Amino acid sequence: MLLHLSTWPEVETYLSRRQSIILPIGSTEQHGPTGLIGTDAITAEAIAAEVGRRSETLVGPTIPVGMAHHHMAFPGSMTVRPSTLIALIRDYVVALSAHGFRSVLFINGHGGNINSVQAAFSEVYEEMRAARGSDAPSLRCALSNWFMLPGVQAVQKELFGDREGWHATPSEVSVTWAVHPDQVRDAPLDPLPETSSTFFDSRDFRARFPDGRMGSDPALATAEHGRRFIDAAAAEILGRHGAFLDGA
Amino acid sequence: MLLHLSTWPEVETYLSRRQSIILPIGSTEQHGPTGLIGTDAITAEAIAAEVGRRSETLVGPTIPVGMAHHHMAFPGSMTVRPSTLIALIRDYVVALSAHGFRSVLFINGHGGNINSVQAAFSEVYEEMRAARGSDAPSLRCALSNWFMLPGVQAVQKELFGDREGWHATPSEVSVTWAVHPDQVRDAPLDPLPETSSTFFDSRDFRARFPDGRMGSDPALATAEHGRRFIDAAAAEILGRHGAFLDGA
Amino acid sequence: MLLHLSTWPEVETYLSRRQSIILPIGSTEQHGPTGLIGTDAITAEAIAAEVGRRSETLVGPTIPVGMAHHHMAFPGSMTVRPSTLIALIRDYVVALSAHGFRSVLFINGHGGNINSVQAAFSEVYEEMRAARGSDAPSLRCALSNWFMLPGVQAVQKELFGDREGWHATPSEVSVTWAVHPDQVRDAPLDPLPETSSTFFDSRDFRARFPDGRMGSDPALATAEHGRRFIDAAAAEILGRHGAFLDGA
Amino acid sequence: MLLHLSTWPEVETYLSRRQSIILPIGSTEQHGPTGLIGTDAITAEAIAAEVGRRSETLVGPTIPVGMAHHHMAFPGSMTVRPSTLIALIRDYVVALSAHGFRSVLFINGHGGNINSVQAAFSEVYEEMRAARGSDAPSLRCALSNWFMLPGVQAVQKELFGDREGWHATPSEVSVTWAVHPDQVRDAPLDPLPETSSTFFDSRDFRARFPDGRMGSDPALATAEHGRRFIDAAAAEILGRHGAFLDGA
Amino acid sequence: MLLHLSTWPEVETYLSRRQSIILPIGSTEQHGPTGLIGTDAITAEAIAAEVGRRSETLVGPTIPVGMAHHHMAFPGSMTVRPSTLIALIRDYVVALSAHGFRSVLFINGHGGNINSVQAAFSEVYEEMRAARGSDAPSLRCALSNWFMLPGVQAVQKELFGDREGWHATPSEVSVTWAVHPDQVRDAPLDPLPETSSTFFDSRDFRARFPDGRMGSDPALATAEHGRRFIDAAAAEILGRHGAFLDGA
Amino acid sequence: MLLHLSTWPEVETYLSRRQSIILPIGSTEQHGPTGLIGTDAITAEAIAAEVGRRSETLVGPTIPVGMAHHHMAFPGSMTVRPSTLIALIRDYVVALSAHGFRSVLFINGHGGNINSVQAAFSEVYEEMRAARGSDAPSLRCALSNWFMLPGVQAVQKELFGDREGWHATPSEVSVTWAVHPDQVRDAPLDPLPETSSTFFDSRDFRARFPDGRMGSDPALATAEHGRRFIDAAAAEILGRHGAFLDGA
Ligand code: NI
Ligand code: NI
Ligand code: NI
Ligand code: NI
Ligand code: NI
Ligand code: NI
Repeated sequence: MLLHLSTWPEVETYLSRRQSIILPIGSTEQHGPTGLIGTDAITAEAIAAEVGRRSETLVGPTIPVGMAHHHMAFPGSMTVRPSTLIALIRDYVVALSAHGFRSVLFINGHGGNINSVQAAFSEVYEEMRAARGSDAPSLRCALSNWFMLPGVQAVQKELFGDREGWHATPSEVSVTWAVHPDQVRDAPLDPLPETSSTFFDSRDFRARFPDGRMGSDPALATAEHGRRFIDAAAAEILGRHGAFLDGA
Repeated sequence: MLLHLSTWPEVETYLSRRQSIILPIGSTEQHGPTGLIGTDAITAEAIAAEVGRRSETLVGPTIPVGMAHHHMAFPGSMTVRPSTLIALIRDYVVALSAHGFRSVLFINGHGGNINSVQAAFSEVYEEMRAARGSDAPSLRCALSNWFMLPGVQAVQKELFGDREGWHATPSEVSVTWAVHPDQVRDAPLDPLPETSSTFFDSRDFRARFPDGRMGSDPALATAEHGRRFIDAAAAEILGRHGAFLDGA
Repeated sequence: MLLHLSTWPEVETYLSRRQSIILPIGSTEQHGPTGLIGTDAITAEAIAAEVGRRSETLVGPTIPVGMAHHHMAFPGSMTVRPSTLIALIRDYVVALSAHGFRSVLFINGHGGNINSVQAAFSEVYEEMRAARGSDAPSLRCALSNWFMLPGVQAVQKELFGDREGWHATPSEVSVTWAVHPDQVRDAPLDPLPETSSTFFDSRDFRARFPDGRMGSDPALATAEHGRRFIDAAAAEILGRHGAFLDGA
Repeated sequence: MLLHLSTWPEVETYLSRRQSIILPIGSTEQHGPTGLIGTDAITAEAIAAEVGRRSETLVGPTIPVGMAHHHMAFPGSMTVRPSTLIALIRDYVVALSAHGFRSVLFINGHGGNINSVQAAFSEVYEEMRAARGSDAPSLRCALSNWFMLPGVQAVQKELFGDREGWHATPSEVSVTWAVHPDQVRDAPLDPLPETSSTFFDSRDFRARFPDGRMGSDPALATAEHGRRFIDAAAAEILGRHGAFLDGA
Repeated sequence: MLLHLSTWPEVETYLSRRQSIILPIGSTEQHGPTGLIGTDAITAEAIAAEVGRRSETLVGPTIPVGMAHHHMAFPGSMTVRPSTLIALIRDYVVALSAHGFRSVLFINGHGGNINSVQAAFSEVYEEMRAARGSDAPSLRCALSNWFMLPGVQAVQKELFGDREGWHATPSEVSVTWAVHPDQVRDAPLDPLPETSSTFFDSRDFRARFPDGRMGSDPALATAEHGRRFIDAAAAEILGRHGAFLDGA
Repeated sequence: MLLHLSTWPEVETYLSRRQSIILPIGSTEQHGPTGLIGTDAITAEAIAAEVGRRSETLVGPTIPVGMAHHHMAFPGSMTVRPSTLIALIRDYVVALSAHGFRSVLFINGHGGNINSVQAAFSEVYEEMRAARGSDAPSLRCALSNWFMLPGVQAVQKELFGDREGWHATPSEVSVTWAVHPDQVRDAPLDPLPETSSTFFDSRDFRARFPDGRMGSDPALATAEHGRRFIDAAAAEILGRHGAFLDGA
């Protein structure tokens, strides 16, 4: 059940039996010479939809632009500041809690969002505590980063070994091709240099990773692999957060 | 050309010949007993895509949640504060201008966004002026509210007369059905009371408009009407902003 | 009754019978070669005072500096950022509501303020909703832009035709001369070029409107015209907002 | 020379010979049973005008509402938060410095503003330093609290002895009567209890000072005394800040 | 009793009999050629500890970095913006009040903090008033600047006469030597020029005070003098704020 | 070399050969029935000092209060909001970078700080990029959480096995006893229930962890173990960040 394809009476009915919602969050940023700029939003949205389908949980709108400062040296990357992302998520959660939502699960496709999303949870909790003390509504926020789940990482390892890397990875590119089979890119890629996952600001990032990939070989991606990742991620998220989504 | 389905080298190429981008902005809010909560985002995104196609302009990610405080008394509505929306748009524009984008056109599907979007333009301009003075990059932001365009309003009048109303309108519902033909809702609607478009806060809004519609009869919507609105809106936006998008 | 010329016991008495207040808001910005920098504040204050007199409504202090980024390329113009103006209006309204004021009418003399003022209303409503839910005080904010009222625009048309223009207009200059008969300026003005009301940032504004006027011929202004505008504006505001000010 | 009664070419001329400006700042707050709510703005504005006249310095718009949280338990008092006042003053100063103003003197009528105004100066300086380093414009901000000047306090002592007190003082009321001779109030006042100038929040303030006066006997006020205070304050401000206003 | 050397059950016990806490606040800034950068934090912390010991009041953590923009032209100085310091103190006070602390006394070692700390108190009071009205918790905040206490100033005068000056003073240096006897510096100092305590931004500060001292001769400092200042300051703070700390 | 025990000429000399600085960050929060409220600050400060000693790196002031919302249901805990902590760290880094510091290493003792500190790094980088583009100073920020270092965790495992837990751990308590041998607490502790490291807001935290410990047995702590942890942590931090501190 997708929020944007629901009516308010349908949501009212949903809330009478269930108070959980899933919110996908991605990013709009370079993903190497062949990866889509929308990769992280596409993957998060696809996996969130699958989790929603399997668990009959409402899925809200995807946050398409995340905290991607470090990609700003590549054309087309967009970013919001951490402080803006915290304010945005705070507003989302405050709005949803007003309707009685009690469990909010963010499914995230971008490493750069993690700190801001987690910080936003604390910001909301603390604001509610400070303003209402013991009258604050019961509210539980959780974050699942699909690409970091152990089961997903096992599949990454199995399929791509050490060519998975950290950015513009074959696993995320696979998921985008599963979702958008018409968007396969087939450009020649430079050989991968030795690298690490360390970087500082956006200028430093581009100096270390000149074409945007961080040790990843997206040429290994296939739509079929993508479907396997969606399945694995959805299953693992449900295994970890199923009770949470059931309000337990 | 959609940003999220592009790669960074493709955007680099695009920027070498063109420095404009379109950003759809919608809302996640009740649209009466039969309208989709995502209506404003769906309509803005569809019309923006059409404008992008016709003018070969890049279209960025849709802002799915807007300033919809006044709808908060209906389950499922989400809102961001004006101050958050201003920060968000500021960040989008600042990021895009760093890559050389000079003309940013927001195509908007929700009346409640107008003030915040326009305020955000001034916020960005003033920040750039204060920080850089005469070194500030040349930057032009514009807003087009498709549902308020005179040509679109003529079609609304022609097709629906005074049953168009102001919210959960047959015109916007028509567009959502053109985009999502499987999402037609057919629920009985109460007769429309005499009403106006005035309201204050969200509590007041619900007291005045108990089922969420503001004088609108969405039962008049059809997908075919929707296609006509997309066409009319895209044509008029191009007529008004075509030179802007060409950088003139 | 002017707030700044009242005592607190007098306000207490006023509140026992009436919970409405009028707040003028202007701007401090260039008004062409002959218009006063304080024009928008002077006009808003004069019209607000007249509305207050006729309706026995309390009139609060004038906000003298508004959102006038676009005039910043002319010496003497001042501006606040939209975010600052929103915070300011939020504070005003929050303070007034604490005393029991329930209807707050801003009478505005400057187009650049509209978005920020309206955004501020939503900001306040949403803050109160989020913090107090159904316990939030009943509060109604409204904005009247005197120079855009249909009745006022009819007089502009009648007296000045298409030489009214959009900035440093003969109508607003007339009002300033009605208020300050000793401040008439009589400088030679360049012929008016063809123009429109479109502009982007402050640099762009000055490039389009080199002496600050936007298609306006302030040489047509007279103090007598000014008195007519004050009268017309006050009457129309009362016609539109009289019941609001009466708490109905 | 008053900014709001000037044109931009006149300001341009002024700036060619002088880069200083005076900004009055007051408050909108209870001043006891007989004092005007606008007292602090009226006094600051009158004294600033006098200083401007004597020194041929431009005087900008008065900030009418200041930081007056502690008066909020009395009807009609308004306040802005310190953070809002800092943002407002920051914007004023940033705007003025863009035109080449280099010396900005705030003349203040309200003790509650002092901390926020001074904090705002540091906020502006630090923002300019952080953003521009050694390229930051030379900018000097100063604050003069007329009612705390030693020469003014000598007159307070001479005329009113220990009945001057700290709020709704005969000296400030005298100045308002000098400016508005038609606004004299003549209500019976309770005897003054022993008191001090200490207080915490607004609830505590009203508990300590039930009618709003802090040890002051405004019945001693006269318009003639008010003229003497305006003269004494203007003279002393010029003695202290004349060179500053001259750009030395 | 020091908060950081207590356990939560010990604080719970403390709160059952006493609801006051002391918070030292200092700065991290140049103190001339021989003064320690941590001087203001060291002095505030030492005096706060002494006050806590004598009155059996809990002493919280020291704020080590204050508002020291004006010292930023000297290597090693750190500063927070006034707006940041206000937010920080707001958070401290909001957190403490949640546990039932009712009297919060800041003991301050740095003049540059005064405005921001006092502004923060108003910010907290006003936020609590706006959010909770008459349900706001009773809360009292106070500030004591040890180096400005009359009794302390008498000792400064007695020991150092007009060589005390305003920054890198022999009195504060003496206190640091009493606390850190191993940190005595003995560098030759330039003769003191005629000076005043006026300055504007950090660039202006260094131009006026090239080695960082403001008319002070820290060569007069001794650890023994420092012990006398700690004693005098603690005694006077207790004399002034003892009842406050007792909750009276 | 400690910043607060240095003079500005000493820092100037230091900067001529080295542009790195270490900043300890802790928290002020409950640490179970026997752990000190200042534990996280004490541990971070001790380890940072040891790293500074071994590498001759300057160590700045400790941030004593961190993001500890989740501990707020226990008396004596303090917290700042994530947004405040981001502003604070932004200010610290901006100030230090003005003097030429290029490598800033935060050594952290509290898990709740991680997201805000990392978010603050992105906030600073993005602000500098947006304001200065390619003129932004080269700046590198890094975070080391001593208690999560693999080598430290190996010692935790060796000494305490699964009784290390997650909060009020024997390892951190050991470090505090190494630093403050006079602060050993010896209270009886309830048996440890089965638990996990999951929690939501502060109310939920206390419901899950009634005495504040999260599966930890601090009775295993000894000062000698503490010295071993300081040594292990300092060595590992140097191994990982030594080149960073050397500017390589
Ligand atoms: Ni990705
Ligand atoms: Ni709509
Ligand atoms: Ni105007
Ligand atoms: Ni006053
Ligand atoms: Ni000092
Ligand atoms: Ni800890």
